[in-house]
Amino acid sequence: MCGIFGIYGHAEAANLTYLGLYSLQHRGQEAAGITTFDGSRMHVQRRQGLVAEGFSMPQLAHLHGDRAIGHVRYSTAGGSDPRNAQPLTVNYRHGQLAVAHNGNLLHAADWRHGLEGMGAIFQSYSDTEIILHLMSRSERDTLEERILDSLRRVHGAYSLLFLNEEKLVAVRDPWGYRPLVMGRIGDAVLFSSENAAFSLVGATFEREVEPGEMIVVDGQGVHSSFPFQRQAGRAQCIFEHVYFARPDSTLFGKSVYASRVRAGELLAQEHPVEADVVIPIPDSGIAAAIGYARQSGIPFGLGLIRSHYVGRTFIEPSQSIRSFGVKLKLSPVREVLAGKRVVVVDDSIVRGTTSRKIMQLIRSAGASSIHLRICSPPVTNSCFYGIDTPTREELIGAQKSAAEIGAFVTADTLGYLGHDNLLASVADPDAGRHYCTACFSGRYPEDPNAPADLELPSVPSPDRSRHG
Amino acid sequence: MCGIFGIYGHAEAANLTYLGLYSLQHRGQEAAGITTFDGSRMHVQRRQGLVAEGFSMPQLAHLHGDRAIGHVRYSTAGGSDPRNAQPLTVNYRHGQLAVAHNGNLLHAADWRHGLEGMGAIFQSYSDTEIILHLMSRSERDTLEERILDSLRRVHGAYSLLFLNEEKLVAVRDPWGYRPLVMGRIGDAVLFSSENAAFSLVGATFEREVEPGEMIVVDGQGVHSSFPFQRQAGRAQCIFEHVYFARPDSTLFGKSVYASRVRAGELLAQEHPVEADVVIPIPDSGIAAAIGYARQSGIPFGLGLIRSHYVGRTFIEPSQSIRSFGVKLKLSPVREVLAGKRVVVVDDSIVRGTTSRKIMQLIRSAGASSIHLRICSPPVTNSCFYGIDTPTREELIGAQKSAAEIGAFVTADTLGYLGHDNLLASVADPDAGRHYCTACFSGRYPEDPNAPADLELPSVPSPDRSRHG
Amino acid sequence: MCGIFGIYGHAEAANLTYLGLYSLQHRGQEAAGITTFDGSRMHVQRRQGLVAEGFSMPQLAHLHGDRAIGHVRYSTAGGSDPRNAQPLTVNYRHGQLAVAHNGNLLHAADWRHGLEGMGAIFQSYSDTEIILHLMSRSERDTLEERILDSLRRVHGAYSLLFLNEEKLVAVRDPWGYRPLVMGRIGDAVLFSSENAAFSLVGATFEREVEPGEMIVVDGQGVHSSFPFQRQAGRAQCIFEHVYFARPDSTLFGKSVYASRVRAGELLAQEHPVEADVVIPIPDSGIAAAIGYARQSGIPFGLGLIRSHYVGRTFIEPSQSIRSFGVKLKLSPVREVLAGKRVVVVDDSIVRGTTSRKIMQLIRSAGASSIHLRICSPPVTNSCFYGIDTPTREELIGAQKSAAEIGAFVTADTLGYLGHDNLLASVADPDAGRHYCTACFSGRYPEDPNAPADLELPSVPSPDRSRHG
Amino acid sequence: MCGIFGIYGHAEAANLTYLGLYSLQHRGQEAAGITTFDGSRMHVQRRQGLVAEGFSMPQLAHLHGDRAIGHVRYSTAGGSDPRNAQPLTVNYRHGQLAVAHNGNLLHAADWRHGLEGMGAIFQSYSDTEIILHLMSRSERDTLEERILDSLRRVHGAYSLLFLNEEKLVAVRDPWGYRPLVMGRIGDAVLFSSENAAFSLVGATFEREVEPGEMIVVDGQGVHSSFPFQRQAGRAQCIFEHVYFARPDSTLFGKSVYASRVRAGELLAQEHPVEADVVIPIPDSGIAAAIGYARQSGIPFGLGLIRSHYVGRTFIEPSQSIRSFGVKLKLSPVREVLAGKRVVVVDDSIVRGTTSRKIMQLIRSAGASSIHLRICSPPVTNSCFYGIDTPTREELIGAQKSAAEIGAFVTADTLGYLGHDNLLASVADPDAGRHYCTACFSGRYPEDPNAPADLELPSVPSPDRSRHG
Repeated sequence: MCGIFGIYGHAEAANLTYLGLYSLQHRGQEAAGITTFDGSRMHVQRRQGLVAEGFSMPQLAHLHGDRAIGHVRYSTAGGSDPRNAQPLTVNYRHGQLAVAHNGNLLHAADWRHGLEGMGAIFQSYSDTEIILHLMSRSERDTLEERILDSLRRVHGAYSLLFLNEEKLVAVRDPWGYRPLVMGRIGDAVLFSSENAAFSLVGATFEREVEPGEMIVVDGQGVHSSFPFQRQAGRAQCIFEHVYFARPDSTLFGKSVYASRVRAGELLAQEHPVEADVVIPIPDSGIAAAIGYARQSGIPFGLGLIRSHYVGRTFIEPSQSIRSFGVKLKLSPVREVLAGKRVVVVDDSIVRGTTSRKIMQLIRSAGASSIHLRICSPPVTNSCFYGIDTPTREELIGAQKSAAEIGAFVTADTLGYLGHDNLLASVADPDAGRHYCTACFSGRYPEDPNAPADLELPSVPSPDRSRHG
Repeated sequence: MCGIFGIYGHAEAANLTYLGLYSLQHRGQEAAGITTFDGSRMHVQRRQGLVAEGFSMPQLAHLHGDRAIGHVRYSTAGGSDPRNAQPLTVNYRHGQLAVAHNGNLLHAADWRHGLEGMGAIFQSYSDTEIILHLMSRSERDTLEERILDSLRRVHGAYSLLFLNEEKLVAVRDPWGYRPLVMGRIGDAVLFSSENAAFSLVGATFEREVEPGEMIVVDGQGVHSSFPFQRQAGRAQCIFEHVYFARPDSTLFGKSVYASRVRAGELLAQEHPVEADVVIPIPDSGIAAAIGYARQSGIPFGLGLIRSHYVGRTFIEPSQSIRSFGVKLKLSPVREVLAGKRVVVVDDSIVRGTTSRKIMQLIRSAGASSIHLRICSPPVTNSCFYGIDTPTREELIGAQKSAAEIGAFVTADTLGYLGHDNLLASVADPDAGRHYCTACFSGRYPEDPNAPADLELPSVPSPDRSRHG
Repeated sequence: MCGIFGIYGHAEAANLTYLGLYSLQHRGQEAAGITTFDGSRMHVQRRQGLVAEGFSMPQLAHLHGDRAIGHVRYSTAGGSDPRNAQPLTVNYRHGQLAVAHNGNLLHAADWRHGLEGMGAIFQSYSDTEIILHLMSRSERDTLEERILDSLRRVHGAYSLLFLNEEKLVAVRDPWGYRPLVMGRIGDAVLFSSENAAFSLVGATFEREVEPGEMIVVDGQGVHSSFPFQRQAGRAQCIFEHVYFARPDSTLFGKSVYASRVRAGELLAQEHPVEADVVIPIPDSGIAAAIGYARQSGIPFGLGLIRSHYVGRTFIEPSQSIRSFGVKLKLSPVREVLAGKRVVVVDDSIVRGTTSRKIMQLIRSAGASSIHLRICSPPVTNSCFYGIDTPTREELIGAQKSAAEIGAFVTADTLGYLGHDNLLASVADPDAGRHYCTACFSGRYPEDPNAPADLELPSVPSPDRSRHG
Repeated sequence: MCGIFGIYGHAEAANLTYLGLYSLQHRGQEAAGITTFDGSRMHVQRRQGLVAEGFSMPQLAHLHGDRAIGHVRYSTAGGSDPRNAQPLTVNYRHGQLAVAHNGNLLHAADWRHGLEGMGAIFQSYSDTEIILHLMSRSERDTLEERILDSLRRVHGAYSLLFLNEEKLVAVRDPWGYRPLVMGRIGDAVLFSSENAAFSLVGATFEREVEPGEMIVVDGQGVHSSFPFQRQAGRAQCIFEHVYFARPDSTLFGKSVYASRVRAGELLAQEHPVEADVVIPIPDSGIAAAIGYARQSGIPFGLGLIRSHYVGRTFIEPSQSIRSFGVKLKLSPVREVLAGKRVVVVDDSIVRGTTSRKIMQLIRSAGASSIHLRICSPPVTNSCFYGIDTPTREELIGAQKSAAEIGAFVTADTLGYLGHDNLLASVADPDAGRHYCTACFSGRYPEDPNAPADLELPSVPSPDRSRHG
């Protein structure tokens, strides 16, 4: 997962992008980058690590120009190769171009193979580079046309921001897998993965970029179009509501906070239990725990404290301290837990190993029984649209029954939210047609295992003039 | 305010002290330090900033020895001079000595003047150095006696850890202003400002160091004594319960979490209001808000999200963004607030300026009315015992009435917890005799304005042999 | 200018490449990089700045594998964009590839334009990337054939090291502009821009890579070939002898130290003067000054001391100190200079501004007269083969007569080494046919202004299988 | 050894001190520090490492004030404890004070013991702190009187700079062991260990601070006095001329460069040899090698190249490379050495191990014979006045004969400069009475083994008013 942010027409474009990325930090902590244009000159800063640690005042001051795009990158299984940091920046036949991408293309390996077969060179391991190679082979006259020439060939999830010396272009794929919203500060136009980022920079949320919409911002203003073939439905990622997005964001038109509280309420109906206290696993379980407590009438309590000082390169003692990693982040509150029947609310279970450690932490603080309640169904399938889920072999939900999982994590009882209630939680009567729930249901909007239909572009005639 | 941690008799003394300081990080973010002894050699690392950022693996590896003390230092008005970082380490007539101090001595300026008049040199601006100078002028034979020679002359708040090549000594002043607890891992003995630090390192909480108690740990074991004149009562800092300590700590024998929930309940009784939602100002107001909601029956909600990525040297945009500093830390959740009558629960109001910005943040998210509820009385007096409160001129509680404060912070209504309820919240029937509430009441256990009674030591005869 | 180093078949490939680059540091201080292969996995570290400052022990430890290539990059007019750091690394149809380049291609802008016209994307501003794009469009089966497919199309200067999972390939262009030598440590094979780098790592110098030679090192051994069309002569860069290379290197078969001493002797014959002392401008003028003193009989002296502590980001005082920059690096020795007629020996004059400051420094130390002697002719033409000379407008040798230059730099007399003596200094009877002296003579081996003959490759058929 | 620098009355006091320390960097690379006064406020920056690496622009900008003192510290056997970095800064009965010290006090351990016996606390391991403790016990009214009260009690080597809010005081001990000079920029007054530092900052050298002289600079001007008892002679350190000082400095009234050339000439007379080339061990042997070559008529050559890029934390390969450490710093020039009879000129031999490695390096480059010539007598005794010589056990000159040393270092012949010629080299007819040659002769000006005569001060009456 990643976060993207862009702004056009503001004297402090780089600074505001920096703040925007700070607000989107939860979407990716591995790397951050900002690209600006100052007339025809491109400026780039990309680095590993957190936004607030990675950029210094002088570095931002070098990012001249009134337009910028930025990116925060999530740490993925492929490892943290610095070459993958975005925005990607290139020189090609049409000049300079920067791109920031949230999502994942299907058949990326096939596309790389196909493009490499035509002579393309890849500098990163990012599927985003495929889009650039397709654009560089387009003979169309405008940036927008080249973007479409490229995107019409690929499938998968993409919320994209492109920046060249003239234009900022925002595109969201026709299925609308990943969020993308638009805002304003005075005359400046902004885009962001989540609208929570607008609050910090003082921008006003205007609207979502619609699935299949392309918005072009340039000196002439803002131009919207819907250049893609219309899809039968949408495939908005429900896991954004469950876990990924900030609770203060409005996502796909619905409050994340509200959907989480609602999920907690439905969970209390679906899996009631007699208990003394309802506690969240902070921070992602807080809103749902509030909902569970509200619905069940069991008092809400803060049984686990989350540390604000977790360093990423923590020094572990050489002797083994039980559940050391989890303890660095979470501390149990004995007062809340000792001798109590505790309902623990979390968003999801992926591998089960962290849940197991947390159960042990709670038990060690004296809980008499633990009732784990999960605000989503078992994760049974990998995501091919941008969430970095592990393979099915590692997904405990794909390997074990709920009872077995409960036993593995050492909870006394375990209850998952059902699929229908999950859909109900987002308060959209058409949720079934609007959301992708593939990681829970295996029903993929676009089949990731279908044979790739690579319609490689023809090669441009080499005599075309530059900047056509 | 500061935090101290010590350990005697563990092969990983430095690593565990590092982890202990990490757990006490909330007590001081300005500087951190660790001193160990390896036979007769002292090793020291002190640096500005957070524990997790300040120490590298190789630096810890150089801190040899099976005994260590550590310190985290709060940023005080006096500024962040690196020379003030503790543990202070010195060479004096009796060898090498390190000391870590939580608290504040009364009449520190007078003592410095007096000692300087006798030829003492001060390397830091810390009052802790006074204790060392008094010890260096003592002719007593043992470390313990020299400590007492020194401490019997001074007044004020001190929880102290001393370490030399032979012994670790823990002392708590006779009034017991500041907390200090003792724990064990196997045969190793530990001390910490709060017992929450024991959880991370896998230690067992044993008991509090009592007011006026000295505990000596050496090769012969653990020795307790009560060498000071007994006081009529105690003066345990109630502000530790209100704000400073971790909610997962047990402080002065009582759960901090419980006292905060209880304070919230009493606040709901004392200042009821019709409202739609109760929200905390995270993190310090969470437990109290749970109590207020529980007592009042008004639903608990999470109306403000706290960022986990606050960098200390944040780059501010040159244009003014309204309430920028507060926005970096807190984000409003419109879903919870818009159109709602909101009860906001916070621990205390010091200057009022931050509260005012938070009220504006909540209002900007659409709250129809805001009822600010404070889990402690107005802060009307400066602390002379270790909390870095500003002068009375800057304390809004000392300058304005509650109504005026409510108007200043732009709350619709404002309610403070009364003094009796504050005492009731800590669940100690003798709270009135056991707690210092001077910052709220002006009743100082030891009068900070009484003339200093400096009983300067005589000068040692210079021919005494070393290490006597 | 740049330096390259490579090794195949040594357990400490990365460490030795690091040491080799340290020895080649004088060839480029802007950036350094190392790429290794560990079976089929490529590892990369590239960073701005000096080798000894840029790499940490853990970073080197991550560069697994028994084969490596490295690069140090000179700061060029184009600025210090981190994207230009080498080795360049790419993924293309034939797998992974890394390349390190010393030299400059002719018509680089035309090639970029042509390749971009065919859809190529450029990630850097380096002309080296052209070679990779031509290779990626080759349909040949082996790495060597693809390299030749590419290099046969281009003109200019290149000493190159290629590394993929199987092979290390070293190539030197048919004119032999830039040096490249081969050595051994046990069974391991090494390549380096200069043989001085072999000394530090304990390798034995074996021979030069010949102009037009390609040497392939793989599991089967070392294979040499001469796949390019033979040139009429050579174009070895004489400026390497004059200034660029280390005096302890043997370059193009001749000792750099010897050629510099010889140049100084010839200079003394060509421009004798009555004087009291001969001093070098350290370090590049030392050997020539020894030669001048030896030939003239005038005593050698050390009139300027070079600092060992020049930091690259030095803090300049806000008030102007005369000739501050030069003074940071060089200090005059009054004892040697005061009241003396001083012969100052330097390697070359480019813009004249530094020479002027040095003359003033020497004059300020009391020299009664200054006779500047330059061990090469006036620099009158730009280099297109890898030395970063400024444009003719900035070359004082192209704009002024020797007399005018002498006046400008405030020397009492000025003498340049003549072109014939320059050729004589390298002790090669065929020097006239073996060396490029274009920067002094304007006689370019390959005309940089000839129209580019871009024979763009055809596009590969996209269905070819990978790793063919 | 250390270097000190001070300035009074210049708007850029901190910046110029920074530059001055940069010029004195050869006198100490372990730590550097600067203290300024801005009215009554003291500002301090001290850090480990090189001047140019240790201070950033913003850090210098915080060092407000028009007066400053600075210090560079040499790495000593006692290890690199950051607490030893100077200037030392203290608060004492008379306010704030900073001190920078070059030299060593005799009987330092006894003084520490004595002062600790009176209750003094030591923060560092530096003998400089003794001076401060004696001052803090003085009841005199002025800074100058307190300095004298202190210094009249101690013996040994001290060139000192004191700075408080009013005055800059420079003192040199009556024997004049260590250098100290005075200069001017406009109205500003400067002091420095060596006058070479004046050149960079644009200051004019005025004169030496005389042995036994105290110079006070304040708002009223510059005041000189000679408050100490006059000594029979001087004890200027001859090792400064041999090795320590910069060749472009004038030391004790004589050019360092000239004395080294002269030493080389005398060495050629004393130990002639038939040879092909004279080479220095750079940089300290260069001037002497010039002298040897000049006198002997044997050509001077540069047979060893010194690297400019030696990093202090270099990464060594795990396999052993012969003489790795020396090779990092020095590279042999085969052209100069192969098949030649080589005279190698060095300043001194301490342990002999480095010389041995260098001989091997030269031999490996093909030298047919090596004649090592040393510009000073064997080092037979430890220095107690500021040079960090090892103990006699480690001094090869104290343990072996010249012939044995020659064999150990594997030179074909070895010749040391005789004691009389050493004295002759400094061109002072009274050199025998003016210079300390104890490290070569064992004749100590003040007997370091004499029983300490500790005249401890009486204790001040504690009621004295501050800032008297």
